[in-house]
Amino acid sequence: MLNKVNREIPDEFLKNGKEVYQGKFYMDGKYVKKAAPTTKIFEKPVDSKLCSSIREACEKCGAKDGVTISFHSELRNGDYVMSMVTKVLIEEMGLKDITIAASSLGDAQDLIADYIEQGKVVGIQTSGIRGRIGEVVSAGKLKTPAIIRSHGGRPRAIEAGEVHIDIAFLAAASSDEWGNAKGTGGKNNFGSIGFGIGDARYADYTVIITDTLVDFPNLPAPISTVDVDCVCLVDEIGNPNKIASKEARFTDNPRELMMAENIAKIIAATPYFKDGFSFQTGVGGPSLAVNRFLEDYMVEKNIKMSFALGGVSNAICKLLDKGLVKSIIDVQDFDLGAIEHFTNNPKHFEVSSSEYANPANKSAYVNKLDFVVLSALEIDINFNVNVITGSDGVLRGAPGGHPDTAAGSKCCIIVTPLTRGRMATVCENVVTITTPGDCVDILVTDYGTAVNPLRQDLIECLDKAGIKHVSIEELKNKAYSLVGTPADLKWEDKVVAIVEARDGTILDVVRKIKPYTLN
Amino acid sequence: MLNKVNREIPDEFLKNGKEVYQGKFYMDGKYVKKAAPTTKIFEKPVDSKLCSSIREACEKCGAKDGVTISFHSELRNGDYVMSMVTKVLIEEMGLKDITIAASSLGDAQDLIADYIEQGKVVGIQTSGIRGRIGEVVSAGKLKTPAIIRSHGGRPRAIEAGEVHIDIAFLAAASSDEWGNAKGTGGKNNFGSIGFGIGDARYADYTVIITDTLVDFPNLPAPISTVDVDCVCLVDEIGNPNKIASKEARFTDNPRELMMAENIAKIIAATPYFKDGFSFQTGVGGPSLAVNRFLEDYMVEKNIKMSFALGGVSNAICKLLDKGLVKSIIDVQDFDLGAIEHFTNNPKHFEVSSSEYANPANKSAYVNKLDFVVLSALEIDINFNVNVITGSDGVLRGAPGGHPDTAAGSKCCIIVTPLTRGRMATVCENVVTITTPGDCVDILVTDYGTAVNPLRQDLIECLDKAGIKHVSIEELKNKAYSLVGTPADLKWEDKVVAIVEARDGTILDVVRKIKPYTLN
Repeated sequence: MLNKVNREIPDEFLKNGKEVYQGKFYMDGKYVKKAAPTTKIFEKPVDSKLCSSIREACEKCGAKDGVTISFHSELRNGDYVMSMVTKVLIEEMGLKDITIAASSLGDAQDLIADYIEQGKVVGIQTSGIRGRIGEVVSAGKLKTPAIIRSHGGRPRAIEAGEVHIDIAFLAAASSDEWGNAKGTGGKNNFGSIGFGIGDARYADYTVIITDTLVDFPNLPAPISTVDVDCVCLVDEIGNPNKIASKEARFTDNPRELMMAENIAKIIAATPYFKDGFSFQTGVGGPSLAVNRFLEDYMVEKNIKMSFALGGVSNAICKLLDKGLVKSIIDVQDFDLGAIEHFTNNPKHFEVSSSEYANPANKSAYVNKLDFVVLSALEIDINFNVNVITGSDGVLRGAPGGHPDTAAGSKCCIIVTPLTRGRMATVCENVVTITTPGDCVDILVTDYGTAVNPLRQDLIECLDKAGIKHVSIEELKNKAYSLVGTPADLKWEDKVVAIVEARDGTILDVVRKIKPYTLN
Repeated sequence: MLNKVNREIPDEFLKNGKEVYQGKFYMDGKYVKKAAPTTKIFEKPVDSKLCSSIREACEKCGAKDGVTISFHSELRNGDYVMSMVTKVLIEEMGLKDITIAASSLGDAQDLIADYIEQGKVVGIQTSGIRGRIGEVVSAGKLKTPAIIRSHGGRPRAIEAGEVHIDIAFLAAASSDEWGNAKGTGGKNNFGSIGFGIGDARYADYTVIITDTLVDFPNLPAPISTVDVDCVCLVDEIGNPNKIASKEARFTDNPRELMMAENIAKIIAATPYFKDGFSFQTGVGGPSLAVNRFLEDYMVEKNIKMSFALGGVSNAICKLLDKGLVKSIIDVQDFDLGAIEHFTNNPKHFEVSSSEYANPANKSAYVNKLDFVVLSALEIDINFNVNVITGSDGVLRGAPGGHPDTAAGSKCCIIVTPLTRGRMATVCENVVTITTPGDCVDILVTDYGTAVNPLRQDLIECLDKAGIKHVSIEELKNKAYSLVGTPADLKWEDKVVAIVEARDGTILDVVRKIKPYTLN
């Protein structure tokens, strides 16, 4: 069946009420019956939930073949916990048919690729999928299609009961013996534990994995003892120095700086740029650089930001320290500076991923965003964005909060160079749609700006401010003239991943890429 | 059917799996499938959830005949919100067959008694029931038996789906326009909003009623915007000066002081009195006075309290300020001093009533209590306690956290004068059982101390410390010799209230009292 963004969704995936994507606010005003866990009652007082090993915790929580386990990705590339736990389940306990429901997957979890190849891990539900996991899934080695969801789509699916977590294994920087747990207060702090909060509440069993046990009560705690069954003390939960990836950096590339400057100019030309506005950027170089150019406009016009949302980097923390931002609402921290700021600044607040972006909530913070600036691997002439598959069709990206902030914000700006290497970034059709075009308002490239024709109001603003813009087709044509028209990728029939829209409808599927051959 | 505390529970109440009380840890290790609300999806961004009136909010939330509405009782005797809302529903909107599920009811809600008499309010679920409401319920004027639950039993019932809240109307001292709400930050602060947190999460609709609207985001907020449908701004939510009732006072009665001193001596004689112990007192005069005598022992032995739990009064806050208590875990505040301390002290933490005392949790804070000191209206020779019905059989009390802390603590001490006026407090059979005797360890009266024979370990401790104690029968005999053997109350058949044990089994029923006549 063809969906609203013209992607053919195979009927086999449209069972049990699953629908195809039908527009960004299709679910508005509908009702959702929330799911809930089946939990064990600890009526008799117990002084401690400490287990002597991860294996003991797994056994207490009834781990068995076919189990669905969940993890948060706050330690990003520095995470040790997922590998540690799956190793116990698979190598020590000999379990199989495991499904991993994680908020993201990357290089730190390369071990999981082995378990996929061995047929031990048979299901993957995640936002990000990078490194060897992306490669083996793209090669068709996972038994069931991977399900890709946004950071808001994941808690939506959990709360709707579409993902039932049997056991959540949650890394905590500190915990008391009763499982009051947080992302700070330990030796390997990672800041906000926003991605783990919902897992603890909706999993049948929750295991806290920490390397720093602190005195009871470890309060206030985003993860409460009432949702925790077991606490495991390990040597190290991860390496926070690896949280900041190469994606989260400040650019000195002149083209990127130029794009960032143009974005700040565009923002300042809209009616939303006024005292009390709100803002989020991704962690791409040009997105991050917008912070510094925006600062000039804010100072000049004496405008302060009400709140910055994110995925938080040190850049926005510095703006708060300068008094230009009133508060930061934080679901994950992208660098050590942000972690430090989260720990110490009383105006830097923690929210769960459900609060951050779940479209089936009574309101998510993304719905109060004025601006979001996001990057893209590709964007097509209908403003559909791809942030999951590379130009070779292999899974190596992460929707993250991209579709959520794009849909919720009043003005969503995509920034990308027109070409990357020999690839056109602006194209006729993106390989995979991860953010539908009806959520994207403006595209800024190093060769010009285009506004989504759906947003005539923004076109007027830019015209009034004398900001030049062209049609997105012109940008695509320019890109093709520079690097040539891309050849179509060759696919097999097998679907290796399903991309869910944030509301749970199906946005796109990713098929197995045909191996490259000489003939 | 006869239950474990020898009360006859009529079969008509033992339907749908409802059981009679079978001992304090009967549910331990069992599993509970948690309930969940059906909530409306606000996928399209809305800038504000403000309603122009309570009526508008009621209509948006689908209020209709037969609705179950909930309220928290943090404003205690100073609460204006419950009367305000029920007046709109009943007098403005003409609704009927309303069930009120509140964390407590008292004089502030006398208006509800009228609505019960008019047959508009047909169901009451509460912990406390005092004032005119208690009188009309005892007189058999409520259409269905009132259900009395402890502070832990209430969230248990909500989370088990035994109470389904259609609309929660929650007083907040401050809220932003999106419904991030708390018990502080406004003009009528009441401190912890612990009783409201679960209501917001489990109700289909949640309405925040506040008199202080603050800038977005009102974070950190115990009640999150994602659980809130509507926000109503009113002139005054209540009068915090009325929070401290006559029950919450410091005594200068020499008999009460003597009992308090004896309790401190007993506490100091147990093995639980060591550095890092935990403690809770009720708000009765002698219970509160224990704090000051305990202080001497703590200083003398260089012992610090790990945490104080409650129901918090200024007395324990002062001990924290002196460095004798490391932290306070707070579900409600009993006086303005405690509210002030809650607002400003970073070691004074807020918990929900579920976290505080729900026996069907993975752990509740009451389960980590070493000592609790509680008062009683009556206690019988099996150590069963009554805190709900007066000597005339009329409902005028509140189990509150009594049964929860008694069951969870290592040492539960009941303090009461042997007689009150012409009534024996220690008796053969209490009028109504609210805390079963298997949860009660020690009774301290002004005529002596008795230890529950189930606790031979505590008897040994007292003997070793040379603390005199007698059998509870001796205390009862002494009481009867002083004031005479009480005549049995005369009851009609009609059950006016069901007292649920904290685990949901039925502990006792309260029948309609026979009107007093001359013949």
